[in-house]
Amino acid sequence: MSELRFDPIRRRWSIIATERRFRPHEFKRPVMEPPGDVGGCPFEYGNEHTTPPEVFAIPRGPRLPNTPNWSVRVVPNKFPALGIEGELSREAVGIFDKVAGIGAHEVIVETPDHLRPMADLTPPEISLVFRAWRDRIVDLRRDTRIRYVLLFKNHGREAGASLYHPHSQLIATPIIPTVVVQELNVAREHWGHKERCVFCDLIAQERAFGDRMAIETERFVALEPFASAFPFETWILPKRHGHDFALCPDDLLEDLARLLHDFLRRIRALLDDPPYNLILHTAPSPHPRPGQPEFWSTIEYDFHWHIEFIPRITRIAGFEWGSGYSINPTPPEEAARFLRDVIVEPS
Amino acid sequence: MSELRFDPIRRRWSIIATERRFRPHEFKRPVMEPPGDVGGCPFEYGNEHTTPPEVFAIPRGPRLPNTPNWSVRVVPNKFPALGIEGELSREAVGIFDKVAGIGAHEVIVETPDHLRPMADLTPPEISLVFRAWRDRIVDLRRDTRIRYVLLFKNHGREAGASLYHPHSQLIATPIIPTVVVQELNVAREHWGHKERCVFCDLIAQERAFGDRMAIETERFVALEPFASAFPFETWILPKRHGHDFALCPDDLLEDLARLLHDFLRRIRALLDDPPYNLILHTAPSPHPRPGQPEFWSTIEYDFHWHIEFIPRITRIAGFEWGSGYSINPTPPEEAARFLRDVIVEPS
Repeated sequence: MSELRFDPIRRRWSIIATERRFRPHEFKRPVMEPPGDVGGCPFEYGNEHTTPPEVFAIPRGPRLPNTPNWSVRVVPNKFPALGIEGELSREAVGIFDKVAGIGAHEVIVETPDHLRPMADLTPPEISLVFRAWRDRIVDLRRDTRIRYVLLFKNHGREAGASLYHPHSQLIATPIIPTVVVQELNVAREHWGHKERCVFCDLIAQERAFGDRMAIETERFVALEPFASAFPFETWILPKRHGHDFALCPDDLLEDLARLLHDFLRRIRALLDDPPYNLILHTAPSPHPRPGQPEFWSTIEYDFHWHIEFIPRITRIAGFEWGSGYSINPTPPEEAARFLRDVIVEPS
Repeated sequence: MSELRFDPIRRRWSIIATERRFRPHEFKRPVMEPPGDVGGCPFEYGNEHTTPPEVFAIPRGPRLPNTPNWSVRVVPNKFPALGIEGELSREAVGIFDKVAGIGAHEVIVETPDHLRPMADLTPPEISLVFRAWRDRIVDLRRDTRIRYVLLFKNHGREAGASLYHPHSQLIATPIIPTVVVQELNVAREHWGHKERCVFCDLIAQERAFGDRMAIETERFVALEPFASAFPFETWILPKRHGHDFALCPDDLLEDLARLLHDFLRRIRALLDDPPYNLILHTAPSPHPRPGQPEFWSTIEYDFHWHIEFIPRITRIAGFEWGSGYSINPTPPEEAARFLRDVIVEPS
C-alpha cells in the first residue's frame, strides 16, 4: 500500500506511491503516446473493457456500464497514487509521521473524441466535464476517511500528461493538501478580522483597477494574479461568493464552461497550444476532525472556490524549489492585455 | 527594474523579472546549447570579455582580471532576475505588496573545462567551487540590503540549465526565501522546546535506523529524507553542528567535496547522468530587521546548514503545484540501498 509521509522540517507531505514503483533503470525520459494512436487508446469507444470498471458516466442515450455511447466517463486510475481499500492508520516512525495511503485516484475522460482537446470542445460539452467533477466530489465525500478531493488537468507532456486523449484527474486524500490549508487559513483570518471574503475583496479590487483582468462573463472573472508565479497564470473565480464547487447548479457550470472555452482559445492563439495545468480549489469535505467542529463553522463565509490555470512554458528549477520564489518574465498586466486583445478565429 | 511581489493568499513571493521579459511569441521550448559548442561558450578561456566583468576568481597563477588562467570564475548573470542598483523601496498596491527587485544574480563558472561536468571534477577541484560559494556569500552580506544569498546548481536542460559549461548560480535577495523561513521556524521552535538542533536529532536518528543512509564520510552524511519528494532526493549535512556555510574552514569544504564527488558518481552510474538541482540552505545574512534583534539571538544554535540534491527525473505537474504534495514512486529506503550498493568505475 502507498504511504503518505510528513516531512517535519519542510512541513510537507509526500505520497510514496508503491503501486507505480520505479527502480533506477526504469527512469526513462517520460514519453507520451503519439496523438495518432487512436486504436490503442483505452479511452476510445469500444475499449471500455481495457480500463478498470467505470465509477461514473454521462450517457448519450441508453447504455450499459462499460460500453460505448457516453459523453464523459470516469474510471479509476490503472496505477493509482492512493487506493480506496484498507484501514486509515496513522503512525509515528521515530520523529516522523506516516499515514496509510487511503484515497482515490480517478481519470475523467472528457470526450470520446481522441483528437479534440478541451479547447476544441463546445461550451455545453465542457459543462458536462464540470458536472462530472462536481458529481464525483459529492460521491467521494460520502467516505468519511476522505478529507479533500483535488480535481486537476494536465494537458501536454511538459504538463505531466502521459495519454493524449483529453482527460482530467482527481486525487482524494485523507489529509487536506498543504496549499489548500494555506489558502483556507488566509481566508479565515481575513474573514475573522473583517467579516469579508478575501477573494471577494480581490475581485472587487481587480475589477476596479482593471489592468490585470483578462475576461469577464456574466458570472465569472478570469484575472492574472498580481504576484503571478508563471507567465499567463490565470485565476478563474465566480463573481458571486460561493465556497463549494460541489454546490454549483448546472447553469453556473454552463457559464463557467463558456468562459473557459473562450479563455483556452485565446491562450492557444497566443502561446501556440502550450502545455498547461488546470487546478480546482474548493472547500474540503465537511467531515470535522474529532474535537474540531469549529473549523467548519465559518467555511461557507470565508472560502471562495476558484480554478487556477498554469501554462507550463517556464521551468521550475533549483532556485524555485529551494527558495519558494518563482521567477516570472511576463508581468501579469502585460499578460492580461494580450489576453484581452488577442483575436481568436471562430470555431 | 524587476519587482518582488507578494501573493497575500498563497503567502508566496514572485520575482517579476523585467530584464528577461518575454512576449507571447518569444516562448519557445527552452533549448540548451549543444555540448560541443566550445568556441562560442562565454565561459571558455579567451572569452572572458564576452561576460560582464568578473566579481571573483580563484587564479591558477599570476593573472589580470577578465583574462584566462583561472580555476573558478564568478560573473554577474547577463540577464539578471534581480539587479544591484537602485533603492530598496517597499510599497503597497491596493491589498498587495511589492518590493523593488534589488539583489544580485551571479554565475559561478566551476571549471575552465567545457566538457567536464561536476561529477568529473576531482575532489580538490570541487572544493574550490565551494570556496567560491563561501566567499561570495561573505562578500554579498556586506550589503545590508541583502537578507539572503541562495546558491544553487542546475545540471541539464530538464533541471533548468541553458548553458552546457559546468556552472552554478547565486541569487541574493532583500527577503529571506519562504522555504528557508519555514526551515528556520521549525528549527527555532524545536530548539525553543528542547534546546537541541532538529537537524542534529535527524542525523542521530537516521544513523541509528540506517535504512535511509546513503554515504557517510568523516564529517558528512548523505541521507534520503523520510518524506522524499522526489526519487533519490538526498540531503547532505555536516555531522557536527554548524549554522552557517560561510563559516566553513577549507578542510571541511574538502571533506564535503570528497562526499559530493563520490555521491555524484554513484548517481550517474544509477540514473544515467540525470538532470539535477543542488541547493544550499544556510543561515540568512546577520542583518537584523529593525526591531527584531532577537530573531538572530539563537540562530547559531538552532539552524544547521545543508545541501539538498534533487534529480529531475519525475515531473512537477498540476497535482503537485495545486496541492503541495509530491508523488514519489521510489521509497527512500530503496534509493538509499541502491546508492550504498552501486559499484562506480574508478576515475
